Amino acid sequence: MVRAPSTSGSSQGLFDLDLEGAIELIKKSGARTVGVQVPEGLKRIASDLAGEIEEKTGCEVIVSGDPCYGACDVDLDLCRAADLVIHVGHSEMLEGDPLSDKVVYVEARMRADVREAIEGAADDLLSARRVGVVTTVQHVHKLAEILEVLKGRGIEGVVRPGGRTRYPGQVLGCNYEAARNADVDTYLFVGTGQFHPLGVALATGKRVIAADPVTGNFSVIDTAQILKRRYGAIARAIDAERIAVIVSKKPGQRRMELARRMISLGMERGKRMVLVYLDRMEPDALVNLGVDAAVSTACPRIALDDQAKYPVPVLTPPEFEVLLGGRKGDYLLDEIE
Amino acid sequence: MVRAPSTSGSSQGLFDLDLEGAIELIKKSGARTVGVQVPEGLKRIASDLAGEIEEKTGCEVIVSGDPCYGACDVDLDLCRAADLVIHVGHSEMLEGDPLSDKVVYVEARMRADVREAIEGAADDLLSARRVGVVTTVQHVHKLAEILEVLKGRGIEGVVRPGGRTRYPGQVLGCNYEAARNADVDTYLFVGTGQFHPLGVALATGKRVIAADPVTGNFSVIDTAQILKRRYGAIARAIDAERIAVIVSKKPGQRRMELARRMISLGMERGKRMVLVYLDRMEPDALVNLGVDAAVSTACPRIALDDQAKYPVPVLTPPEFEVLLGGRKGDYLLDEIE
Repeated sequence: MVRAPSTSGSSQGLFDLDLEGAIELIKKSGARTVGVQVPEGLKRIASDLAGEIEEKTGCEVIVSGDPCYGACDVDLDLCRAADLVIHVGHSEMLEGDPLSDKVVYVEARMRADVREAIEGAADDLLSARRVGVVTTVQHVHKLAEILEVLKGRGIEGVVRPGGRTRYPGQVLGCNYEAARNADVDTYLFVGTGQFHPLGVALATGKRVIAADPVTGNFSVIDTAQILKRRYGAIARAIDAERIAVIVSKKPGQRRMELARRMISLGMERGKRMVLVYLDRMEPDALVNLGVDAAVSTACPRIALDDQAKYPVPVLTPPEFEVLLGGRKGDYLLDEIE
Repeated sequence: MVRAPSTSGSSQGLFDLDLEGAIELIKKSGARTVGVQVPEGLKRIASDLAGEIEEKTGCEVIVSGDPCYGACDVDLDLCRAADLVIHVGHSEMLEGDPLSDKVVYVEARMRADVREAIEGAADDLLSARRVGVVTTVQHVHKLAEILEVLKGRGIEGVVRPGGRTRYPGQVLGCNYEAARNADVDTYLFVGTGQFHPLGVALATGKRVIAADPVTGNFSVIDTAQILKRRYGAIARAIDAERIAVIVSKKPGQRRMELARRMISLGMERGKRMVLVYLDRMEPDALVNLGVDAAVSTACPRIALDDQAKYPVPVLTPPEFEVLLGGRKGDYLLDEIE
């Protein structure tokens, strides 16, 4: 493990990256051109990484300049241009494009101490003697320690395998398989931000406590606001006549068959449906197309987290089924399996 | 020729598209899935076009949702997903990716009357009895009429073949070959906006009069402001230590060898150079990479027209050579041949 090069004012100083392992792999592979893809939060280290790889391997290095937020978003054009691609910060996704065989995943492990936030949350957890434990790839190496801290407070932590995730207990913005079948009423999410624990709460309908190892704080996730906004978006789409169904070009988000099913459902109800293929979902795309609403089969979080940016309602596939009257019952989070 | 479907408030009512021809081609090709790519200014007709093609051919239609500003930007992912792609509004570019063999180009012909603007400009032109005539693909069908109007005022119009353009007299934002070797001191540009005639003036160093067939007005192009801004950008890049060299993924903008030459030049002068491959050049890309300046081998107009959007100087390759002291003399516009 080497420490990621530290540059001023950004967060990568908190992470360990196994760059040495990647450099060994590059040397063994005989690659002459190496691609480097880094997520937005770590982008500032990209040119240092490129310099280090060039220096230690003699390869030409090409950095991916497009935004990247997950392993769903491997830069396939970079895979075409390079012999090998180093993808930093995300764990491997099991399916994908054959081109992604060229990808070497270098995960980023956060060094933050998980103990303080979990100790703080434990009092709230104590009413549940058994809790499901989930986290993101940045903290999966801390799972044993998390279970131990819980045990010290008399709480049994349950870790379940995930779906398209690489590690047990690991969740993604689009996949909460690891937060299922745990037979618990409460989940403990360890990690930063509200993005993932909100997904856990929506996916399971259970109580979720988020413990943040960077701040040392914890919070109980409230889904009321987001559910209100989602039902609001569905309601605003009722009169939509012209509806775009979005399919992402990103290899881990490309759900063409699901999109075709949405097109059929809409047409059966007399809607004017248009199938739209794009790399990056953006407000301008919908403005320029002149549609009244969109159903996004791309990243499920676009509709949930970014609706305010869009001029028209953007629904997930299950929300679109609610709109058309074909689905009843509890709110169903869109996940990519 | 069929009239483009007219929808409210947008400009496509001014254009004729030969959609019938494209539909015949689709039927003959045996295609089952057809892609449709439309530039931003005509995007609103995309879903109507898709509906018409579906109805008349029985094919599934997929619309490209990413921005498109030229034939340099054929959607290769759409080419991979569809059997045939209808690319609207631009003329074919002669080089490109093998995938672009799937593309059928449907040009948009503007119906606007060119006579009024040229008659108005003629008084200014009269000092030159011989002028070079250039235009964009939307007006190339009017070239004979343009020459006739000029002749009526005693002016000889000279039309020269272009480079990567399909028609004599046609210019692109990145190519002014048709404005060379005309042995004239003045060019008449017929078309809308300042984007193309500014390019003619920078590429030739000659006087350029732009006649706008939509407004009926004409203007004489002044390059002083843009040249001042460009030399300002070069001056601001003098102390840059870390410099990104941008290569575009777009098939008609991908200049990897030129980028490699820029990397070498910069390294010889002790700069820290990083090679960046991206689909869409945007301010955030440079902010996140933390570079002090960029050299863009993508669309030459990014540096010229959009510099104000960027937090750091963005130079064209010839401007970078000026910065490094390797090039003297008149301002040299970056063009893609």
